[in-house]
Amino acid sequence: MNFTKMHGLGNDFVIVSGEERPPENTPDLARRICDRHFGVGADGLVFILPSESGDFAMRIINADGSEAEQCGNAVRCVSKFFYERMSRARRELRVETGAGLQRVWLEPDGEKVRRVRVDMGRPVLEGKAVPTTIDAESVVAYPVEVGERTFSFTAVSMGNPHAVIPVEDAIAFPVEFWGPKLEVHPLFPHQTNVEFVSFRSRSELDMRVWERGVGRTMACGSGACASAVASALTGRTDRRVTVHLQGGDLEIDWNEKDDRVYMTGPAETVFEGKW
Amino acid sequence: MNFTKMHGLGNDFVIVSGEERPPENTPDLARRICDRHFGVGADGLVFILPSESGDFAMRIINADGSEAEQCGNAVRCVSKFFYERMSRARRELRVETGAGLQRVWLEPDGEKVRRVRVDMGRPVLEGKAVPTTIDAESVVAYPVEVGERTFSFTAVSMGNPHAVIPVEDAIAFPVEFWGPKLEVHPLFPHQTNVEFVSFRSRSELDMRVWERGVGRTMACGSGACASAVASALTGRTDRRVTVHLQGGDLEIDWNEKDDRVYMTGPAETVFEGKW
Repeated sequence: MNFTKMHGLGNDFVIVSGEERPPENTPDLARRICDRHFGVGADGLVFILPSESGDFAMRIINADGSEAEQCGNAVRCVSKFFYERMSRARRELRVETGAGLQRVWLEPDGEKVRRVRVDMGRPVLEGKAVPTTIDAESVVAYPVEVGERTFSFTAVSMGNPHAVIPVEDAIAFPVEFWGPKLEVHPLFPHQTNVEFVSFRSRSELDMRVWERGVGRTMACGSGACASAVASALTGRTDRRVTVHLQGGDLEIDWNEKDDRVYMTGPAETVFEGKW
Repeated sequence: MNFTKMHGLGNDFVIVSGEERPPENTPDLARRICDRHFGVGADGLVFILPSESGDFAMRIINADGSEAEQCGNAVRCVSKFFYERMSRARRELRVETGAGLQRVWLEPDGEKVRRVRVDMGRPVLEGKAVPTTIDAESVVAYPVEVGERTFSFTAVSMGNPHAVIPVEDAIAFPVEFWGPKLEVHPLFPHQTNVEFVSFRSRSELDMRVWERGVGRTMACGSGACASAVASALTGRTDRRVTVHLQGGDLEIDWNEKDDRVYMTGPAETVFEGKW
């Protein structure tokens, strides 16, 4: 089986195309391929498949064998792959994902795509819907007590729950200490992703993330979107910002007209392989 | 650049052959290739090169850009590669390493090599030479106090220092708790690798390892050799044992005639790639 190793901000994938459908026993295959010592090593195995409704379909199998409905970093990678290797007909694509059709826009530089813009949908702010235990239209700069410390958080769902917390210096913040405590705080009935943010200006913020069920990661696309929304809601930034993550930068635009969040970021090909 | 990803007991390498010499800026290349998110991902980048004195030479650049003189797991991988892909003339090879010529014996099954035997040299037992601070001909079942606990250790150098400690159950032992404390104990002037071993019989032992400067790993060839030597010295096993590691099994033979330690273990090809 031929594959291409790609990453978006260090979130890395083994990309397979040219199959009619995923092979038998995909969870087991994903676990073996994604193993970083005995296999190729990746966060997920991603199939590019034919689609009836979109330009193509993607299916993402996580390293643990579970299936992810969608992933902002993966969709940038497969869109770059599709344009460079399968069809250069359009610069706007519709990608069928487990969460429906996702719109993406390519920014090609000749035959190569460096950056991809992704429609990440509308943020959900209603307290019970995020979900939090708080019955309010939105949960903005709300206190959360952990041990002897009280943080101020804003709750945003981008399909998954996020608690965005401003801190003095996100880069130096002890994410591993506070992240797991906030993740399982009783305010969040489905637990939560936690983003720690600090501000360089009204258009630039630093973010570090503790991902629900995963731990510290180098990049989280939906977390960057949630952080931009929360920072605009609390008046700390404008609606268009650059989010500096450990793995690189994302540009986030929380569009005023349609209320949707557009994320623009890089996708990189690392190597070609044969499994 | 074409490469082959291989591993020995989960200790994994990007193998490159067909070059006259390593490329410029090898440390930087190794760091980039070995990165598990932005690169191919491996513990080391290994070049198979022409040699004047051996059948071939190997150079191992670690993931941090430093060079390793030798590595029992890597030499099994490159020997398999050499036999399967470069020359099937001999089943006994001499490999030029940073620590001199290393003898290996292949066990081919048709055109494929499953297991490789490696001459790991003579163990050094003299206390000051290992090194420990103890002036004795050998340091066998010697007490070491850590906090409120006293362990019994045997000191063995296989080119690098090891402290082998028998415990009730090596598999369940809290390696991450005791390993780092023993690694930097004042008895070991150059710090030490620490092996925790328990015994299934006189010919089988379980081992878990804390590697000096690295931490817990799935396999350590020199640690398995040191454990076999220590277990024979303390009368717990015969001189020929199977060592069960987290990444798989190694057979160790501390030969009575020539006092050398022979290690036999697997080597696996994972995939081919182009960087």
